[in-house]
Amino acid sequence: MSKYDQLSAHYQTIHHFNHAQAMLGWDAAANMPAGGNDARSNAMAELSVHVHRLSTQPQLEDWFGQAEQEALTGEQQASLREMKRQWQQATVVPEELVQAQSMAGSKCEHAWRTQRQENDWAGFEKNWKEVVALSREEAQIRGDALGVTPYDAMLDKFEPGTSSASLDVLFSEVKLWLPELIEKALAKQRSETIIMPTGRFSTASQKALGLDVMKLLQFDFTRGRLDESVHPFCGGVPSDVRITTRYDEEDFVQALMGIVHETGHARYEQGLPNAFAGLPVGEARSMGIHESQSLFFEMQIGRSQPFISHLSRLSAEAFNAHQDPVFAEENLQKIYTRVEKGFIRVDADELTYPAHVILRYEIERDLINGVIEHTDVPALWDEKMQASLGLSTKDNDKNGCMQDIHWTDGAFGYFPSYTLGAMYAAQYKATMTNTVDFDAAIQSGDLSPIFQWLSDNIWSQASLHTTDELVKRATGETLNAAHFKKHLEGRYL
Amino acid sequence: MSKYDQLSAHYQTIHHFNHAQAMLGWDAAANMPAGGNDARSNAMAELSVHVHRLSTQPQLEDWFGQAEQEALTGEQQASLREMKRQWQQATVVPEELVQAQSMAGSKCEHAWRTQRQENDWAGFEKNWKEVVALSREEAQIRGDALGVTPYDAMLDKFEPGTSSASLDVLFSEVKLWLPELIEKALAKQRSETIIMPTGRFSTASQKALGLDVMKLLQFDFTRGRLDESVHPFCGGVPSDVRITTRYDEEDFVQALMGIVHETGHARYEQGLPNAFAGLPVGEARSMGIHESQSLFFEMQIGRSQPFISHLSRLSAEAFNAHQDPVFAEENLQKIYTRVEKGFIRVDADELTYPAHVILRYEIERDLINGVIEHTDVPALWDEKMQASLGLSTKDNDKNGCMQDIHWTDGAFGYFPSYTLGAMYAAQYKATMTNTVDFDAAIQSGDLSPIFQWLSDNIWSQASLHTTDELVKRATGETLNAAHFKKHLEGRYL
Repeated sequence: MSKYDQLSAHYQTIHHFNHAQAMLGWDAAANMPAGGNDARSNAMAELSVHVHRLSTQPQLEDWFGQAEQEALTGEQQASLREMKRQWQQATVVPEELVQAQSMAGSKCEHAWRTQRQENDWAGFEKNWKEVVALSREEAQIRGDALGVTPYDAMLDKFEPGTSSASLDVLFSEVKLWLPELIEKALAKQRSETIIMPTGRFSTASQKALGLDVMKLLQFDFTRGRLDESVHPFCGGVPSDVRITTRYDEEDFVQALMGIVHETGHARYEQGLPNAFAGLPVGEARSMGIHESQSLFFEMQIGRSQPFISHLSRLSAEAFNAHQDPVFAEENLQKIYTRVEKGFIRVDADELTYPAHVILRYEIERDLINGVIEHTDVPALWDEKMQASLGLSTKDNDKNGCMQDIHWTDGAFGYFPSYTLGAMYAAQYKATMTNTVDFDAAIQSGDLSPIFQWLSDNIWSQASLHTTDELVKRATGETLNAAHFKKHLEGRYL
Repeated sequence: MSKYDQLSAHYQTIHHFNHAQAMLGWDAAANMPAGGNDARSNAMAELSVHVHRLSTQPQLEDWFGQAEQEALTGEQQASLREMKRQWQQATVVPEELVQAQSMAGSKCEHAWRTQRQENDWAGFEKNWKEVVALSREEAQIRGDALGVTPYDAMLDKFEPGTSSASLDVLFSEVKLWLPELIEKALAKQRSETIIMPTGRFSTASQKALGLDVMKLLQFDFTRGRLDESVHPFCGGVPSDVRITTRYDEEDFVQALMGIVHETGHARYEQGLPNAFAGLPVGEARSMGIHESQSLFFEMQIGRSQPFISHLSRLSAEAFNAHQDPVFAEENLQKIYTRVEKGFIRVDADELTYPAHVILRYEIERDLINGVIEHTDVPALWDEKMQASLGLSTKDNDKNGCMQDIHWTDGAFGYFPSYTLGAMYAAQYKATMTNTVDFDAAIQSGDLSPIFQWLSDNIWSQASLHTTDELVKRATGETLNAAHFKKHLEGRYL
């Protein structure tokens, strides 16, 4: 057996434990009763340690050295590169730290599920302190190894090839034109009349509607499910993708578009090439590229006029309200493009969303780099929210720094992916429309040409190329924020 | 650290991987879409191999030798004995065989879920052949090591301390009086009028009723859930017990009592002592003792007059049918003690059930010992069903040898546990009534005195004693089939 094949078999083994980890994580969010938490945390920590051990076995260094001397195809070279990237990321962090992070993260995240509801910053802070300390320790170790700042090392986990220097430039640019664009959109929408939905929209009806929309988006139900959790996410494995949502019986709007969003993540996973299943090269390229799929589904497809037309028809059917003006196409269109300055990122509209991300980026960058302390976060959040969107979160941490799940288990460096994803999605759309009649495909109810483009250019490519290469092959250029700006201006001005 | 402590830590680690395995198994039955099966089978096989590796590490033999020289408390000695028992069972079977069995079992079981519905023996046989062959290989290896027959070695996995010689005697005895008892009960019931339920009983209402009954039985919902699967079971871990049922919207009777049964399993798990959590000595004593709890709940509590009175009230409420004579106490009592010769074990009444078990026992004993071949099973099943209950299963394998999940993944040696459990349960009841006012406790709706007896005598004892010791401590004698006979005669004559 060649060293390349040996490495491949080894990474398949790791994948099987990651499968278990993914399903236990999904279950913890979607099913698990509170009393199961300690045993689950211990089991998941043990799996983490084991995966870490497998990922850092001493012989791997030699195997990589020898495999690099073997005659490999281009795809095998890409596969080797991705295995090596994961190996390098894994070897840097000591096993004890991995285990401590998993334990502290599980504990903090689980408690947060009730602490958030109770606006209990003091309680949350006690657990989170440890999560932050361990993340800083990790960031320091990674940063030293890569020769970058601690925060840039965390970014590298989610967005290989991205630095805070480039994000600072990119986000500064967005900050230049975003405030004015928001104000203009608000002014334009001020005179609009919107009929807001008033409940009750039963969970059962909303779920049935969600499943209908997932069918329209060609979600493969033989390889996935829709369930419920406090914080919606896409989990599982490519052959069994688990997406979740949360229903509000007073309002169907957020859950419905949330399902469209998660379906984008899910189709990327379901569309990954089977030939590389279980190998690093067969995984999604990066978090930003993952978000480019969910946001392509949500923003480019989901909020387009012809798709809103489908939603109008399907939702009126689901709630048996054919004459209700709430579900009229024009009204839904207004609801789904309504701009509003709000507290909650996951409820934010497309236009104010980047402001939420940039705020988080600036705080987590400084927190991980040791420029600020974790106890500074509530006040800083308040200050930045006031500056960017004119809203105060003083004594309202449940709608401030405690609103997101990400930081509870140490996923620092993740937030920028959302806005990178939105930018990529706009860029794909600009390219796709050269060859695909986008609106007509949606209107017909058969979105296959759109999914074929995404499959050819993104899903089937998995991690065969670097992010920059992937985007360049798909669109002819690397990330260009101009497409995003143009898209937003087209929709909101 | 003492060797005893080192061993304990090692078995805790194993337990964490078993936690993952248990939850993946539950998920595969309760949630997983068909397309997820291959990846799941691979992941579970990998976990099996890993657990097997941990359970057979070469240093364990030395550790056991050294730990046996250490000064240990009585409980520690019991703990050491149970670790060693698991170690001996694990070391016998080669890793490749464990992996092959897990793969073949997953494949066979998953395909069986549809093949059974389609009465597809030919399709099932193709997968099952491999399962049987691998089980025989396992049984041969275990038998050689233990110096017993292959089948006795399989029995030992589920019922340590039991042999087919003793079961042959025990079951021969039952076969002496059971047929006559069945005929007498049938004769007595011939003139009874029963009003059978006629649907529709919605799944939602049945589930709500099931949850009510679980509350009455003091199931701890902070440490467990109720879900659905084709074949009802109790899975998960003690702090997070997952029970399942299957609903028939034409009839609520089976699902309801099925929930009572699984709740018995669940409360045993939930009642295991926390002090030994994750250690072999903290696990349930044996499959027969596990069944003694589910059957205590189902047969001793569930079919008692005062409990039927609760079911009468709760079911009439759940289906909003207060005047419906179906739900009258006397009618439910007749339904739940109705004797009928039927094909399906899980639908069988208390009195004919042992006949189903003895049939399976005789077939699997001969199959594993190589006396018969797997292709002989359908005809033998038909022959034995005709002899014991006067029913033919010719060309009806879905209601014959394909009806149970157990053999699909190689759980040979398990079936006797059901009838052992029924016998133990009758014996506990006979003892318990010396100190507990059984009927009055149920009538009051507070069953705590009954559960306290079970907790003190069975649940809290976990595997601290051998089966014989456990039963003797609880009831003053080892298994005595006379209590079972007396219980059946009391109820059915």
